[in-house]
Amino acid sequence: MTLRLHDYLPSGNGYKVRLLLSQLGISFERIEYDIQRGETRTPEFLGKINANGRIPVLETDDGEFLPESNAIIFYLAEGTPFFPEDRLERTRVLQWMFFEQYSHEPNIAVARAMLHVFDLEMTEKRQAVLEQKQKLGYDALGVMENHLEDREYFVGGRYTIADIALYAYTHVADEGGFDLSDYPAVRAWIARVASQPDYVPITQG
Amino acid sequence: MTLRLHDYLPSGNGYKVRLLLSQLGISFERIEYDIQRGETRTPEFLGKINANGRIPVLETDDGEFLPESNAIIFYLAEGTPFFPEDRLERTRVLQWMFFEQYSHEPNIAVARAMLHVFDLEMTEKRQAVLEQKQKLGYDALGVMENHLEDREYFVGGRYTIADIALYAYTHVADEGGFDLSDYPAVRAWIARVASQPDYVPITQG
Repeated sequence: MTLRLHDYLPSGNGYKVRLLLSQLGISFERIEYDIQRGETRTPEFLGKINANGRIPVLETDDGEFLPESNAIIFYLAEGTPFFPEDRLERTRVLQWMFFEQYSHEPNIAVARAMLHVFDLEMTEKRQAVLEQKQKLGYDALGVMENHLEDREYFVGGRYTIADIALYAYTHVADEGGFDLSDYPAVRAWIARVASQPDYVPITQG
Repeated sequence: MTLRLHDYLPSGNGYKVRLLLSQLGISFERIEYDIQRGETRTPEFLGKINANGRIPVLETDDGEFLPESNAIIFYLAEGTPFFPEDRLERTRVLQWMFFEQYSHEPNIAVARAMLHVFDLEMTEKRQAVLEQKQKLGYDALGVMENHLEDREYFVGGRYTIADIALYAYTHVADEGGFDLSDYPAVRAWIARVASQPDYVPITQG
């Protein structure tokens, strides 16, 4: 199986796929796009790779292009220990992955993009957007802290793609101006994830 | 099986679950919350039903509380004709459901909430937010139109929970100020979904 990952190294969404592929022991070719130069909005990218103009996209050896990071890691994880077999646990994993894309990523990842990735000039308007993102991001971290107070991982007492999805941007939340001092359960969980076998850092392509 | 749906009638996210339950022939009890009065942010709701303070939440007969509309419909649909068995098709269904929660709902549903559900006073600041939501909402509709130009349904040539997830807010997009005149494939698909057996409208509790 030859997989190609259409990717952007600073992306936490891309990192979810890189981390899982490493932990599954699957080799892949990585194709880097500079999203700041609009390389994922070209007619060729939109027409062939992802009409929604975003990375990551996993290209399978059958020539299928799979967008949406959480759908990609579901694709790779089903039938492995990273996705449960039990119906309720499967639902819980997806529950946290939808939470990640709706309540977490649009706030924590976007704050990080503004401050760290794109290094935007902080106009008054952008500052107001950033503050709203940070408020809602702390709300999401609060939901995670509450859940992790008596749990080691998000679902079923073991490491799954729910952890991978939430770890991607949580462990670099400081780059979005978030202070995790008041979130000790989240910090302990971050350390547990980082100690998993075949872990790779977000900076590793 | 006795299911209880913690719900808010105008919610398209709640409607996804109501529509699928009707089409599966599963009866349920509906518990209505007035989200404008903060009824999903009370200590009791946050402590027992959903720490993230949102509806819908499906309460199973085992006393499990399942939040996240798309996780709920996955839970109900797996093993039925509404969710495919093929690995790639399963992934495609989830891909569109993540697209819905990230690129579609935050724009189309939120524009509708501003104009139709909450009937907010349109300050200059809110008008700017609305215009941005409408721009991004049209982008999402464009991705859907492109996909549906040569397809009857989103995945595998048949009606699945990907269609239910995307139909919920698309068919009431006019209430968010969206004009679907230039999206004929989307309009034809809306008509196909509305003609499914055991269809119920969003206004039916």
